[in-house]
Amino acid sequence: MSKTTITPIILCGGSGTRLWPKSRAARPKPFLPLIGDTTLFEATLARCAPFAPPVVVTGAAHLTHVEAQLGAAPGASIIVEPEAKNTAAAIALAALRLPEEAVMLVCPSDHHIGDAAAFAEAARAAVALAEEGWLVSFGIEAKVPETGFGYLKRGEAIGKSGFRVAKFVEKPDLERAKSFLAEGIYSWNGGIFAFRVKDFLDELEEFRPAISVAVCKAIRDGREQGQRFYPDPAGFAAIKGESVDYAVMENTARAAMVPVDMAWSDIGNWQALHEARGRDADGNSVVGPAELVDCRNVLVESDGPRVSVIGLEGVIIVVDGDEVLVTTAQGAQQVGKLSGAQNQ
Amino acid sequence: MSKTTITPIILCGGSGTRLWPKSRAARPKPFLPLIGDTTLFEATLARCAPFAPPVVVTGAAHLTHVEAQLGAAPGASIIVEPEAKNTAAAIALAALRLPEEAVMLVCPSDHHIGDAAAFAEAARAAVALAEEGWLVSFGIEAKVPETGFGYLKRGEAIGKSGFRVAKFVEKPDLERAKSFLAEGIYSWNGGIFAFRVKDFLDELEEFRPAISVAVCKAIRDGREQGQRFYPDPAGFAAIKGESVDYAVMENTARAAMVPVDMAWSDIGNWQALHEARGRDADGNSVVGPAELVDCRNVLVESDGPRVSVIGLEGVIIVVDGDEVLVTTAQGAQQVGKLSGAQNQ
Repeated sequence: MSKTTITPIILCGGSGTRLWPKSRAARPKPFLPLIGDTTLFEATLARCAPFAPPVVVTGAAHLTHVEAQLGAAPGASIIVEPEAKNTAAAIALAALRLPEEAVMLVCPSDHHIGDAAAFAEAARAAVALAEEGWLVSFGIEAKVPETGFGYLKRGEAIGKSGFRVAKFVEKPDLERAKSFLAEGIYSWNGGIFAFRVKDFLDELEEFRPAISVAVCKAIRDGREQGQRFYPDPAGFAAIKGESVDYAVMENTARAAMVPVDMAWSDIGNWQALHEARGRDADGNSVVGPAELVDCRNVLVESDGPRVSVIGLEGVIIVVDGDEVLVTTAQGAQQVGKLSGAQNQ
Repeated sequence: MSKTTITPIILCGGSGTRLWPKSRAARPKPFLPLIGDTTLFEATLARCAPFAPPVVVTGAAHLTHVEAQLGAAPGASIIVEPEAKNTAAAIALAALRLPEEAVMLVCPSDHHIGDAAAFAEAARAAVALAEEGWLVSFGIEAKVPETGFGYLKRGEAIGKSGFRVAKFVEKPDLERAKSFLAEGIYSWNGGIFAFRVKDFLDELEEFRPAISVAVCKAIRDGREQGQRFYPDPAGFAAIKGESVDYAVMENTARAAMVPVDMAWSDIGNWQALHEARGRDADGNSVVGPAELVDCRNVLVESDGPRVSVIGLEGVIIVVDGDEVLVTTAQGAQQVGKLSGAQNQ
């Protein structure tokens, strides 16, 4: 590993609608033990343990969860966003508190990565490219023609394991997603990045000066409180919330990507969680008391009541407190629109 | 209506497994408001209100329910069976406490009859035949090739609206059930009967002398307590529990039937209940708080928690206390075998 300081920037946001009713506004996805006993946030911390102490960027609403689960990450610090303004501003807040030569490893806190060794190897490669001045995305190997993600198209090779990004592609329709898969030079854009602090801030200033100025001011006038840092809220409201992809990556001439196959999932809905979990020989996955008869590919999750299921295939059943959800795999994408998920 | 005394004999048994978890051992099917606000037992009483005060035959376990719901049936009496010994013995207990010339109208308490006028008309016809010495079954018009019921084959006509029973058929397989439906001379055996007391007792003595003797003794040595009558338990344990069909109807030379089409259902499982209930334009039926999105022919019944359902067709979802049941229409027939239903 290089001698550069590598600082994980862990982004903790999310509204708690897509895995409702398990995840709720007051109990969002990163902080739930969705796969095994570890939460996605804790697993993210564990993956980043080999690097410098992490910087967690989160909102006041999630602070209790963050501090409860941050536990064994010595030296970690927390930036409490005045309000959620998407990833460009969140990363900029962290960048402005770090040395210019440090490399940031930007990690969402609500993704599942099954193959930690593959992640570590890709992180090494991405950091090496970042040290050379590239702004690096992790390009997740596309396994199915997913229409819910953006894609990266590979350009010319850089060194042993990197590529220029030839094109950023917004969420495609199914036909295009299928052709991407067939062409073999498209990866999912998983929202994991490596940036040298100076390079990121230079590009942000170039392409989004308003965000750059507002975030600078927020950091300058902010205040420290223990491990927390509170940026000044004045001027933050005026920021246009944009993703780092849109604000920086699609504009910079130095966009690179590192392909990686690491059993990744954004656990973007119940079906994605079902696929990420271990299953029995019939494809069923059960958490809580349940009896399944003649079932295949059924997910059951209950926080108490026994769930008895007969004759179903490809169905997701979640019992949580005063809410019961029953959906098909396809319907799982609409969970966030349910009254229960909307009016929390 | 004739001047004969017509006494409804209302049979209240059942183990509470097939509509589990709504019906349970301690809260069986006849006493639940499954369709509208009235319980099946109350609806049975209401249908029988034009006749003499009813005799309810039940077990000690159901006595509380019976007395709570018997309410406005003046002069009703209750026979508390020492133990459940199927319908032949239950009817005999009632018969032995009635005048020989009375006609018994035997009604299960856990069936739904949508068309009360059709029932009343069939009852009049059945009673008329019983007064002539026939042992009369109601022959329910077969609407689908049901394999869960016995069938009656029509023989030669008797009077205006009756027929001899040419044959009793045990539960057929699907192929035979289909051919019965096509032939048009088979009805479902719904367990509703009209017998003159004397004729029934004569035939029971002829074909099942052991039951006849044991029941006589139980009545002779029994004791009255308010509206309840407790037959003596001695000798009752030795009785072989047999249905009245098997013990009497299949043996007697005087078996008749009255065809009737009265929107009947035995509510034998959740799918049958679903079909008997009112549904919306998509075929859905909801009791309790629920949100259904892209659903067809879904039944939801919840005693509290909200049930959110997406994209399902032909599925039954029941939430009751600490139990949740999710099953297909076909799976509904297996509900009684679930651990939850078995180990109550």
